[in-house]
Amino acid sequence: MEQRVSLITLGVSDLARARAFYEAMGWTSGATPADDVVFFQAGGMVVALWSREQLAADSVVQDTGGWGGITLAYNTRSPAEVDDVLEEARAADGTVLREGADTFWGGYSGVFADPDGHPWEVAHNPHWTIHDDGSTALGA
Amino acid sequence: MEQRVSLITLGVSDLARARAFYEAMGWTSGATPADDVVFFQAGGMVVALWSREQLAADSVVQDTGGWGGITLAYNTRSPAEVDDVLEEARAADGTVLREGADTFWGGYSGVFADPDGHPWEVAHNPHWTIHDDGSTALGA
Repeated sequence: MEQRVSLITLGVSDLARARAFYEAMGWTSGATPADDVVFFQAGGMVVALWSREQLAADSVVQDTGGWGGITLAYNTRSPAEVDDVLEEARAADGTVLREGADTFWGGYSGVFADPDGHPWEVAHNPHWTIHDDGSTALGA
Repeated sequence: MEQRVSLITLGVSDLARARAFYEAMGWTSGATPADDVVFFQAGGMVVALWSREQLAADSVVQDTGGWGGITLAYNTRSPAEVDDVLEEARAADGTVLREGADTFWGGYSGVFADPDGHPWEVAHNPHWTIHDDGSTALGA
């Protein structure tokens, strides 16, 4: 298995609402309103929105609700950009779970949840590198 | 917010066991045995393994256990490679939740769970492109 991830699928209860949130965050997809899956090209991988019920069945797991031990993160190019993204999420009907603040590891971060409760850490990490194409690399 | 993901953190109950699983799958990290987080450079992003309890606290979410509506996928370059990766996962003490089979969308896929129960779909999708560098693009 090569060291890469191709696709992250977020299970959602209301596809139109979830799509509207990510579009309000500035993301675009080629999906039509009739599509039952929305795919976003996200750098060298894909983020999908799909019925949580169908995703659970397809993944052969029981869905007991709530969070399941996976958190996504979006790394910014500056500390100020963390606050900007959190404001963007609030304006898009997301929920800010933790306001931007200095972290114990020397960075600056906050957390928002999308309308289905999936948390995203928004972080500036001075020890990592964000390349021009948006790819994130370990190391300064 | 740019259309990209920087980091996926998988919450785990036994870091050494989780790390051994992903290393048995062929992944490598620069983490030392003493580190309490293991970072894998995964293409243009990072996959981390961290204490699920600490991740929940850091993400400001309640952890009710089980699956939480997010599934990762690894896309292969051929249908046969799907079966190879599932065998690799089985040999590495993962659990195959669904054997490789043709899918309704014209591909071939199966699902394994890592030792913490995080499901990975392993899929060959003839409608998408895997570039030489491992990046995954919508469209054939």
